[in-house]
Amino acid sequence: MTADAYAQLETRFHRIASVNHALSVLHWDLATMMPEGGMDARSEQMATLKVVAHELLVDPRVGELLDGAGAQDDAWRAANLREMRRQYVHATALPTRLVEELSKANAKCEAMWREARPNNDFAMILPQLERVIALHREAGQAKAAVLGVEPYDALLDQWEPGGRATEIDAVFDPLAALLRPLIEQVLDRQASRPAPIVPPGPFPVEQQRALGERLMRTLGFDFKHGRLDVSLHPFCGGTPDDVRITTRYSEDLFVQSLMGVLHETGHALYERGLPAEWRYQPVGEPRGMSIHESQSLLVEMQACRSRAFVEYLAPIAREAFGGSGPAWEAENLYRLYTRVERGLIRTESDEVTYPAHVILRYRLERKLLSGELPAAELPAAWNASMQELLGVTPPDDRLGCLQDIHWYDGAWGYFPTYTLGAMTAAQLFDAAVRQTPDIPDAMRRGDFAPLVQWLRANVHAKASLLTTRDLLSAATGRPLDPSAFERHLRRRYLDE
Amino acid sequence: MTADAYAQLETRFHRIASVNHALSVLHWDLATMMPEGGMDARSEQMATLKVVAHELLVDPRVGELLDGAGAQDDAWRAANLREMRRQYVHATALPTRLVEELSKANAKCEAMWREARPNNDFAMILPQLERVIALHREAGQAKAAVLGVEPYDALLDQWEPGGRATEIDAVFDPLAALLRPLIEQVLDRQASRPAPIVPPGPFPVEQQRALGERLMRTLGFDFKHGRLDVSLHPFCGGTPDDVRITTRYSEDLFVQSLMGVLHETGHALYERGLPAEWRYQPVGEPRGMSIHESQSLLVEMQACRSRAFVEYLAPIAREAFGGSGPAWEAENLYRLYTRVERGLIRTESDEVTYPAHVILRYRLERKLLSGELPAAELPAAWNASMQELLGVTPPDDRLGCLQDIHWYDGAWGYFPTYTLGAMTAAQLFDAAVRQTPDIPDAMRRGDFAPLVQWLRANVHAKASLLTTRDLLSAATGRPLDPSAFERHLRRRYLDE
Repeated sequence: MTADAYAQLETRFHRIASVNHALSVLHWDLATMMPEGGMDARSEQMATLKVVAHELLVDPRVGELLDGAGAQDDAWRAANLREMRRQYVHATALPTRLVEELSKANAKCEAMWREARPNNDFAMILPQLERVIALHREAGQAKAAVLGVEPYDALLDQWEPGGRATEIDAVFDPLAALLRPLIEQVLDRQASRPAPIVPPGPFPVEQQRALGERLMRTLGFDFKHGRLDVSLHPFCGGTPDDVRITTRYSEDLFVQSLMGVLHETGHALYERGLPAEWRYQPVGEPRGMSIHESQSLLVEMQACRSRAFVEYLAPIAREAFGGSGPAWEAENLYRLYTRVERGLIRTESDEVTYPAHVILRYRLERKLLSGELPAAELPAAWNASMQELLGVTPPDDRLGCLQDIHWYDGAWGYFPTYTLGAMTAAQLFDAAVRQTPDIPDAMRRGDFAPLVQWLRANVHAKASLLTTRDLLSAATGRPLDPSAFERHLRRRYLDE
Repeated sequence: MTADAYAQLETRFHRIASVNHALSVLHWDLATMMPEGGMDARSEQMATLKVVAHELLVDPRVGELLDGAGAQDDAWRAANLREMRRQYVHATALPTRLVEELSKANAKCEAMWREARPNNDFAMILPQLERVIALHREAGQAKAAVLGVEPYDALLDQWEPGGRATEIDAVFDPLAALLRPLIEQVLDRQASRPAPIVPPGPFPVEQQRALGERLMRTLGFDFKHGRLDVSLHPFCGGTPDDVRITTRYSEDLFVQSLMGVLHETGHALYERGLPAEWRYQPVGEPRGMSIHESQSLLVEMQACRSRAFVEYLAPIAREAFGGSGPAWEAENLYRLYTRVERGLIRTESDEVTYPAHVILRYRLERKLLSGELPAAELPAAWNASMQELLGVTPPDDRLGCLQDIHWYDGAWGYFPTYTLGAMTAAQLFDAAVRQTPDIPDAMRRGDFAPLVQWLRANVHAKASLLTTRDLLSAATGRPLDPSAFERHLRRRYLDE
């Protein structure tokens, strides 16, 4: 009876996963292939499949089966049941009325944000933002009651299962404290050296694409199970057996697109390395946003912006674009790839300043949700925080609190995962190199097998078997702390 | 109450249509973009969505609503209800056991056919073919009992709603009788003239694609609502607001691919011209296979292989490929486009001999299903029929009864729609030109607006409002007969 309930749950979640995989392919097509006139029809298709998947999940029968499934001896099955419960709780915790209000408010606010941002008009969006915050506050409280956690943690849990603000504070606070002086030091040191030379373009798209694909292969991306295409906003989509990554090209620059491709390849290797035997079950899904982001940042920041890899890359890139001269020397490209700037825009920032952008948003969104910070005071609070954390003040809201879509389209509790991912990446890479010391030398030869093997065994193949905390402890010997990330920044940017 | 039942049905069928649209996009992706390693995952996704759509349709609640919906005053709603009933009957007529057996037997037979055909091994496939025939016989009987028609008509109805073998015989028998002597005459006349010159290649794919897209635009294809891509087997897919057609290219020849593109554009214009206000309802769907095929054949055969259009095309094609000399003269290209051959392979045949291939299959499949012809005797019967209808005998089964996938993957009752489509195309084009006499002159200038406007008003915008018979009568003044097709062949191939 118990075994039967569990088997029925697996059948149910298998179907839900297949519908979600179909949705993922439809989303990829929307972003890469779909003609503009297909938008309404695609929205219909995707809305319908979301309803189908949601109805399969919230069916009261699922609750009964979860109650009847009992304890599972096998660790994977036990974890699968835990993840099923988590998905069920998230899907059923909110009253239908609130789900609908959230959906409408998010859509309306996002649409208005697309007007407000170019017009630098925070006042225009304020009422709608207040509405979105109020509804997310209510959602956080409703989920908190079921999950038995704080309201912010309940929102965080949607992206970062088991995430807790107290644990984030414990790593973000020391990181914030060290960043401000560190950024000063890095910029001083950088200013004392000659600026890197930007290789002159144009870089034809076809050559960029070929180079990107070559490096994806070098990293172990299997084109029998994936593709590289173009979209406005790069992403990793598709399904684990058919991973679709995207980039966008500028003919003037190749660095951004290339590093973007390597970043998405990190996501793709994770998806592809998930255990095939749990493909359509919750336990077979990626562990959460911070682990997912750790995989892209490990590949991009830890591995591919390392001096070892840039030494491998420089002659290949030079040849790919028919370049010559000092701009194409490894040392120059390395400096270009590790250039630090005190910028205003998160998405354009480097790995040293990025965490400051994220910590700012994390702290502000907690205050907005708790009510401590009224939304009307967001622009002032934003600018003050920028001054405090980065030493710069945005000249307007377009370059300040209007820059990111996240809050306006309803992604509350999402921002911290970026920097949790960066710290996790540093800690994992540090452990990988300690356990497999030839990883850097292999990368210098363009051999990623030792690194990817370590990641597969310690991260990819684990999927959602362990909690994020236990996964990291098992792989690195300790839970998350900022020390590996700090060491990485000091080594790379201060030669310490 | 009655109005409410109808409204609930519209909601239900809207959801079914959205799932089917999603399936169509997934199928397009499978054929054009998907890496080979994605096949298993895609099969899971598509099988799941098919089950979802099927369960939505066969839900007993649908039967209750259909019973309760009552008569509808509005002609579109009445027709919508009629089409809903038809879909419901087809989906519920077979016991689940038979649906599963059919699905398995078709898949197994198709897989075996992929081995048997290259090996010219009919004996190998025979047991599986016998099983497929027996199951389709049973399915035809089961559906016949519900639909109140003959078993063959019940299978035909799946592709050609309302189709009846007696009516097909009434047009195929005279057509078969006139074809044999007509083919002789055409070949004699052709032999008395110089053979057309094949323009020498190579024809780079990019130039072929550009020419194809240019002509698609000429025909009125809107790239804001569609795409042209490459697949092994050309098709028209996607959804009416996002029509995806495909072709394949050979660098040695451009004629085949170009005519293929124009053929699929005919299908695409039909899909795109379906009434937007009935987009997600059964009455808004294409009328059936013979009407769909009539739209592709009207564009390809009636319009684009006409002398008028080839005169427009010749200088454009010459310029597109940088050609020169007599091979690129309109008269030569026209002869090339209207070349007739007594071939063994249906898919490679011209419009004069094609109907003979179809009539052969139609007659044989009826005998196979009725039991009059044992499957073991198919090769002999095939070869005798080829001799009778076309005057040639296949040297082996690979070029004979093993050439088409249709019977082996379970498409019984499908073949006649090709030639019903060809005849319908001739009858529609004849009516269009009679009602809008400047159509040929406009085509000579590359202006398809008069033709497409007529098709939109008389065919596309009607969707499934009328039966096939009534649609054709309303557009041409009479039900289907072979006279327009015969006149077309005599005019084009015998200058009569």
